Amino acid sequence: MIEAIKMSEPADPRLDDIRDLNHSDSRPDLPGGKGLVIAEGSLVVGRLVESRFPLRCVVGFGKKLADFLAEREPSELAGVPVYEVTREVLKQVAGFDMHRGLVAAAERVPEFSVAQVLDGARTVVVCEGVNDHENIGSMFRNAAGMEVDAVLFGNGCADPLYRRAVRVSMGHVLRTPFAHIEGSYTTWQRGLAELQEQGFHLVSLTPHPQAVHLADALVDADGQPYEKIALLVGAEGPGLSEHAMRATDVRARIPMAPGTDSLNLATCAAIAFYERQRSLRRVK
Amino acid sequence: MIEAIKMSEPADPRLDDIRDLNHSDSRPDLPGGKGLVIAEGSLVVGRLVESRFPLRCVVGFGKKLADFLAEREPSELAGVPVYEVTREVLKQVAGFDMHRGLVAAAERVPEFSVAQVLDGARTVVVCEGVNDHENIGSMFRNAAGMEVDAVLFGNGCADPLYRRAVRVSMGHVLRTPFAHIEGSYTTWQRGLAELQEQGFHLVSLTPHPQAVHLADALVDADGQPYEKIALLVGAEGPGLSEHAMRATDVRARIPMAPGTDSLNLATCAAIAFYERQRSLRRVK
Repeated sequence: MIEAIKMSEPADPRLDDIRDLNHSDSRPDLPGGKGLVIAEGSLVVGRLVESRFPLRCVVGFGKKLADFLAEREPSELAGVPVYEVTREVLKQVAGFDMHRGLVAAAERVPEFSVAQVLDGARTVVVCEGVNDHENIGSMFRNAAGMEVDAVLFGNGCADPLYRRAVRVSMGHVLRTPFAHIEGSYTTWQRGLAELQEQGFHLVSLTPHPQAVHLADALVDADGQPYEKIALLVGAEGPGLSEHAMRATDVRARIPMAPGTDSLNLATCAAIAFYERQRSLRRVK
Repeated sequence: MIEAIKMSEPADPRLDDIRDLNHSDSRPDLPGGKGLVIAEGSLVVGRLVESRFPLRCVVGFGKKLADFLAEREPSELAGVPVYEVTREVLKQVAGFDMHRGLVAAAERVPEFSVAQVLDGARTVVVCEGVNDHENIGSMFRNAAGMEVDAVLFGNGCADPLYRRAVRVSMGHVLRTPFAHIEGSYTTWQRGLAELQEQGFHLVSLTPHPQAVHLADALVDADGQPYEKIALLVGAEGPGLSEHAMRATDVRARIPMAPGTDSLNLATCAAIAFYERQRSLRRVK
């Protein structure tokens, strides 16, 4: 049985990890930010507990906390303080009403290298300039559901461990491995070249009407799926840079009706993940 | 040249159509609600202007309004008052800062009948219990982009003309025809039976692992796409009711990795729209 410590004083420094969440984690990646990983709600807190990120504390109220603790093995939370508060105290500490009733904080850990996340991977997604946390979160949720093995980030992408991305991903940013290919133009070009050297077929997703149909881009001339695929996606609006597209093997499009708008980025990526999984289903 | 009427008094009754937007249109479908269609931003206001909904007024400020008026033909706005306000006045009237700088109101019109929207349609989506405006909006955006001809609503669905749905759909709820099959259990069953009588192949989308792969559900035994397809989707969480699924020809699934969550409803629908379009591409 896991024992919770009852707390009634919002100013208690033991609650600092989850204080002013709308502020303190707005740029956790920058020096001066706390740099903690924050999970909200039973499902996502559960995934944080099971993740590689070392848990620092769990805070909650009422039945939501009790139910959560009843479902976990004491060993999973060994050495981790669990604080029981009221909904009102949690609201004062976090800075907003946390109706999910449960929040947890964990430490960041050193990121995987590109080589680590590619090891054994057959399908990866590579993001360029994807600066929207909601799109990043949705993409991880969809990637996990459709067997994408890893996510790579080029320049200009939002932090996948930002609280909102963690929440929208339903915790999958804590599970699906990711790595950054950041730095100079040369670093980025070299990163893409290395993917090719490792046998990945590089596919740019673009709304351009002259691009190849997505279904044709993921299979070879005999209709066989490529062994390894890297799907490149850019930000909604600007899309992929021309130099990123030039470094890929093929430009692929999802056909759109005339006079309509391009799809939301995460939706577009989800369709590509689906097509990839579809191309492999007779082969596996 | 379209002339705007300058207004400086937030209490002016001529601005009532766009007053307290967070409140007055929260249930525009109920008696007592204003029942107006509200569009925000140049793109969506433009689509409202071109739609079947009679325009009542356009309100905006600064360059956003000027640019919009410069792009329209005067005949498109004939007889429609255009009010120029400041950003501050618009904020006071609408109840929030409308950074898009442009808003318009239109009247609702009698809805299409089911027979009207099915006339000539090859691909339709049928919603049951989809009570989230954002999902409805995204679905219309995706439907328009991927050549879905109409949307049908069963019981328990959110109002597609609610302001948030209009915005998320990027105005496509104003363009893609929709109709309601509401009422008793019998009405709903009869509605589905009528779709079948009109030659639609009815496909339920479900995460159930024993359902048929989506790609196989949309083609016949010879691999040929069905002439007419109706895709049924239920709310995220509960999904389609068992009696709706029983009334369909086939239950189709998008394969998901074990231990992951089902896809967001609009994403799931987008993948089905993509697969439908994909099945037709060699045929058209």
